[in-house]
Amino acid sequence: MYMSKMFIKTLREAPNEAEIASHKLMIRAGLARNLVSGVYSYLPLGIKVLDKIKAIIRDEINKKDAEEILCSALQPKELWEESGRWSDYGKEMFRLKDRNEREFCLGPTHEEIFTNIIKNEITSYKQLPINLYQIQTKYRDERRPRFGLLRTREFIMKDAYSFDKDELGLDKSYNDMYDAYSKIFNRCGLQWKAVLADTGTIGGTGSHQFMALSEVGESDILYCSECDYAADREKAEFMLDEANTIEQQNPYEKIHTPNHTTIEDLCNFIGEPAYKIAKSLVFRVNDKIILALIRGDRELNIVKLCNAIGVIEEAVEMASEIDIRTIGSEPGFIGPIGLKNVEILVDRELKNSTNFYTGANEKDYHFKNVNYGRDFTGKIVDLASASEGDKCPQCGKSMKMERGIEVGQVFKLGTKYSKPMECNYLDESGKKRPMVMGCYGIGVTRILASIIEQHHDENGIIWPVSVAPYHVVVVPVNVKDENQFIKAKEIYEMLKENGIGAILDDRDERAGVKFKDADLIGIPIRITVGKKIGEGIVEFKQRSENNIEEINVNSVLSNVKKVIVKA
Amino acid sequence: MYMSKMFIKTLREAPNEAEIASHKLMIRAGLARNLVSGVYSYLPLGIKVLDKIKAIIRDEINKKDAEEILCSALQPKELWEESGRWSDYGKEMFRLKDRNEREFCLGPTHEEIFTNIIKNEITSYKQLPINLYQIQTKYRDERRPRFGLLRTREFIMKDAYSFDKDELGLDKSYNDMYDAYSKIFNRCGLQWKAVLADTGTIGGTGSHQFMALSEVGESDILYCSECDYAADREKAEFMLDEANTIEQQNPYEKIHTPNHTTIEDLCNFIGEPAYKIAKSLVFRVNDKIILALIRGDRELNIVKLCNAIGVIEEAVEMASEIDIRTIGSEPGFIGPIGLKNVEILVDRELKNSTNFYTGANEKDYHFKNVNYGRDFTGKIVDLASASEGDKCPQCGKSMKMERGIEVGQVFKLGTKYSKPMECNYLDESGKKRPMVMGCYGIGVTRILASIIEQHHDENGIIWPVSVAPYHVVVVPVNVKDENQFIKAKEIYEMLKENGIGAILDDRDERAGVKFKDADLIGIPIRITVGKKIGEGIVEFKQRSENNIEEINVNSVLSNVKKVIVKA
Repeated sequence: MYMSKMFIKTLREAPNEAEIASHKLMIRAGLARNLVSGVYSYLPLGIKVLDKIKAIIRDEINKKDAEEILCSALQPKELWEESGRWSDYGKEMFRLKDRNEREFCLGPTHEEIFTNIIKNEITSYKQLPINLYQIQTKYRDERRPRFGLLRTREFIMKDAYSFDKDELGLDKSYNDMYDAYSKIFNRCGLQWKAVLADTGTIGGTGSHQFMALSEVGESDILYCSECDYAADREKAEFMLDEANTIEQQNPYEKIHTPNHTTIEDLCNFIGEPAYKIAKSLVFRVNDKIILALIRGDRELNIVKLCNAIGVIEEAVEMASEIDIRTIGSEPGFIGPIGLKNVEILVDRELKNSTNFYTGANEKDYHFKNVNYGRDFTGKIVDLASASEGDKCPQCGKSMKMERGIEVGQVFKLGTKYSKPMECNYLDESGKKRPMVMGCYGIGVTRILASIIEQHHDENGIIWPVSVAPYHVVVVPVNVKDENQFIKAKEIYEMLKENGIGAILDDRDERAGVKFKDADLIGIPIRITVGKKIGEGIVEFKQRSENNIEEINVNSVLSNVKKVIVKA
Repeated sequence: MYMSKMFIKTLREAPNEAEIASHKLMIRAGLARNLVSGVYSYLPLGIKVLDKIKAIIRDEINKKDAEEILCSALQPKELWEESGRWSDYGKEMFRLKDRNEREFCLGPTHEEIFTNIIKNEITSYKQLPINLYQIQTKYRDERRPRFGLLRTREFIMKDAYSFDKDELGLDKSYNDMYDAYSKIFNRCGLQWKAVLADTGTIGGTGSHQFMALSEVGESDILYCSECDYAADREKAEFMLDEANTIEQQNPYEKIHTPNHTTIEDLCNFIGEPAYKIAKSLVFRVNDKIILALIRGDRELNIVKLCNAIGVIEEAVEMASEIDIRTIGSEPGFIGPIGLKNVEILVDRELKNSTNFYTGANEKDYHFKNVNYGRDFTGKIVDLASASEGDKCPQCGKSMKMERGIEVGQVFKLGTKYSKPMECNYLDESGKKRPMVMGCYGIGVTRILASIIEQHHDENGIIWPVSVAPYHVVVVPVNVKDENQFIKAKEIYEMLKENGIGAILDDRDERAGVKFKDADLIGIPIRITVGKKIGEGIVEFKQRSENNIEEINVNSVLSNVKKVIVKA
C-alpha cells in the first residue's frame, strides 16, 4: 500500500503508564491502542503481525493433525458446575446474565466446552485420538492489568485440547504439542526456555511453560547450569542442604526481644544469621487459620502453600491481628509452640534444622533452641521458593535464575475433566472409560509483545522477517522529484509482483521523518531512492544492521530475497 | 487430509428444533453444534467455509483501500453514554460489571469504538477519508434466537466504518462499499437483492440492506416489476390509491354492532369491505398513550410507527384494557372521536378516505360516515405496511413481494455519532467540523447459512466452489483393495500438490455410506476409484449434477481445474 493511504499513526512519545519497551513501542508504532485498563484495539500494523503469528501457529499445529474449530466466548454456568470450577474461578471470571437471568461467563479458558463437544460426538476408541484447537478471544478480569499486552483482560489465545485412550496416548499428544510449540516460538524469532510448571486452576498431572526470556517477564525461571532441569519458580524444587542437621539439640528457653518484630531486627539483636530463625506466617483460608513456618532466609511460595492445602490462591488471605490473637499468639512474636485452633504447616527444611528461634506468642519475647518434633509438630511440606544458587533437585549443582514471559503452557490434564463431565469412550473390550486429556495454550497477543521485548533498539522495533507486517519499505527521498518517485514506484510494484510485502512511503515528508518512522515500525528492509537513482543506484539497509549498502537497482530483488529466505 | 483422521461427524437426523434446511444440514453435515440457545461452536468443516467467506470479504474490502483492525468486544458504558445509546439498546445488549463494579457491554455493534479511535488519531482533512473494518464476534441477546445461524446471540460480523470530510465523500465511500458488497455476495454464490432499509437503532440518513432471497428469510422485500425500486417491507412506501376521495361526506351516526369487535366480524355485519373501516390500535409508549388509526385492510408497520414518534421498538407495547378505559374508550370498540389524554396518529391513506367506520368508544357501538378533519383530527403520518400489488412509489406500477435473509446492511450515518462524540477534523480553512460517517455490516455466519439455504437438495449441501471446505473428495470404493487404495492416494496427493483442496475418504466403510457423506457435506467434486482403475478409469461426479462421467485417470486434474476455474 501507499503509506499516505494507510492508517499508520506513529507517536513521538509513549503514554506515561507505559513502563516497558513492548508497551511503549506498540503504542508509538501504532500497533494497538488502549481502550480501558487491560483492553486494547489492534490497528492495521498490529493486525498484520498477529496474522503472521497466527499463520505460523496454524501451520505447525496442523502438521500434528490437529484441526481448527471455534467455540463461543459465552459459556453457561452449568458446564462449569459440572467440572466444579464455577466457584473456584473467583473474581478473575467475567460473569453475566442473559435477558432470562440465566448465568454465563466469558470463557477464561475452554476445557469444559471442548470436553462437552467431544463427549457428545465421540463414543469409540476407534475415533481416538483427537486434537482440536481454536484461535479465539479470552476474558480474564485480572486484578491488575499491566505491561501493555503482557497482562490484559481481553486477549487472543490459541488453545488446543487432546483426547486420548490412555496415558500413553496422552504422552504422544503432549510431546507433539511440545514439539509444535518449540517450532512456533523458534519461527517467531523468540529466545525461549521450556520449564516445569505448576498446573494452577487448570489442574492435571504435569505441565510445562514456555518462557520468552526477558527482564520484564513476570515469571522467575530456575534452571540448572549442568543438567536439563528448568522450572518456573512457583514450581521449582531444590535439594536441601544437610549441613545444619548435625548440631546437638539444646533445651529451649524464652528470651527477651523488645520490639524486635522483623527478621532483620531480630538477627541484629541476637547476632545470628536469618537461617537460624523460623519465620511464622499466618493466613486465613476460608474459615480456617493456617500457620506456615519457613526458614528466615527463605521466601514463602504461595503456590506451594495453596497446593499443600488444596485451595486456589484467591482463597488465601493474610490473617488479621484479631485472627492472630484468637489462636493465642501476638503479632510480631508468632511461633508454633502452644497455639490453639490452628493448622501448622512446616517447611521440610526445618525438619532437619536444629536449635532455631521462633516467636514466643507473647509481646517482646522469642524462644531460642526450638526443635521440630520435640517442641512442636505440624505437617511437613515444601513451602519455600527456590532461589539463585540453590541446588538442582536433579543433580545437586547450583541453579541460576532468569526472568521470562509466559507465552505458552501445556498440561497433562489426565481425567480431571473427563471424569466429572462423563466424557467417556468404549474401549476394545466394550468397557466404558474416561478419555485422557491434555490442553495446550499459546498467548498470541503475548507473543507479539515478547517479540518486541527481544527485538528492539532505541529507535524502535526490529521485526524478525517471519512476523514483519511488511518486508520492505521503499522510500523516495523527495517525492516531488518525478524521477525518484517514478523509480521508487517501479521498485515497489516490482516487489509486489514478486509476492513481497512492500509499502511505498509516498508521503510528502522530509527523508529524516520517513526514516524515523520506518525504524520505529521496524520494517526489515529499507530501499531508499535518492539522487543517485540517475546512475541506477539505490540504498539498501536492513533494520537490524547499521551499514547502508549502495546497490544497483537491478539487484534489489535478489538482495531482498536473500534476507527473506535467510529468515 | 485423510477422512479417518478428520473430526467429521455426520448425522442421519437433524435435531427436532431445526426447522429450516440450513439449520438441519449444518448440524447433519457437522459444520456446527449448538451449545445453548443462539450460541454455536463451529467444527472443522464449518471453520473451513467461514475462512473462505472471510477471505472473499477481505479481498473485496481491501480493494477499496479499507484496512483491517480488531476492536474489543468489551466496551465501557461511558462510550455508549456519549452517543446516547446505553439506554436505547434495551435488553438486546449483554451487560456486565468488572471486579471494580465498572459497567461494560459486549459490543452488539461498534460505532462508538471506531469513532473513539478515529477521534483520537485524526485531526486534519489531509488524513481523510479513512475506512477501517474488522471481522469480529458480536453479541446480541435476541428475544428469540432461532433458525440455526440466522438469528443467534453470538455471531461473526464484518463491520466497516468510513470517515469523510463531507457528504460527497460519504457518497463515494458508501458506493464503494455497496460495490464491494455486491461482489462479495456474487462470489459467495448468493442470489440477492439490495433494498432500501430503515436505519433502526444504528441511525443515520440512508441505508440499504442486502437480502439473500429465500423462503425462510425473516424479511419481506417489496420491489417494482418495472423500475428499480426495492425496499424492505419495514421501510417500503407505496403510492396511494386516489379512488375513494370523490365520495360526498355524509353526516356521521352511531350504529349498534353487538359483540362485533373484530374487523372481519364487523365487515360481515355491516356488509362493507375492510377498507371502509378505520382500525384503531392503542399503544403505551413510556408514559404516553398513542392511538394509531389505519385502514382496516392494512397492516400497521411498527417501524414506521416508531419513526413517527421517535422511539425504538422495545419502547412500544400494546395498551392494557385499563389504559384503553383511561382515555375514555372501550376495548373492541375504539375510535378516534371524543377521547382524552391520547395522541392520535392517522395513516395518510385515511386523510383522503370518506365515510368510514370507527369504534364509538362505547360497548357494542360503532360510528359510520366518519371523516378526518371534520369529525376528529390527529397527526397524519405513514403507518401502513406495503403489500404485494401496492403501487410502486417511484413509478406507480404494481409491486411484488419476496422473502429474504438480511446478509448485509450499509448505512449513511452522517454526523449522528461524530457530533455527540466530538469526532472532528480541521478543514482546509482551519475550521473544526464533524466527520461524516458511514457504517457497513456483513453477517459472516449468516452468509454461511444463506448459502446452504440456496444451495442444497434432499441429499445435503451443494457448496459453490468458491466457499467449499474442500474441492474434491477422492473415494476408493474398497479400501481393502490395495490397488484401488494406492491409486486413490496417488490422485489425492497429485491434487494436493497442484494446490487443490482434496480429502481422501480412507474409511473402511461401504461405498454407499461414503457417497452419502460426500453428498451431505457437499464437496463439489467426487472422484471414485473402483474396479475399473485396472483400465485406468475413474468416476468423475459433480455434486451439482446427476450424471457420472467415466474418465481416464490422467485427465482428473484437467477436469477438476475446469470446474474450479469456471466458478
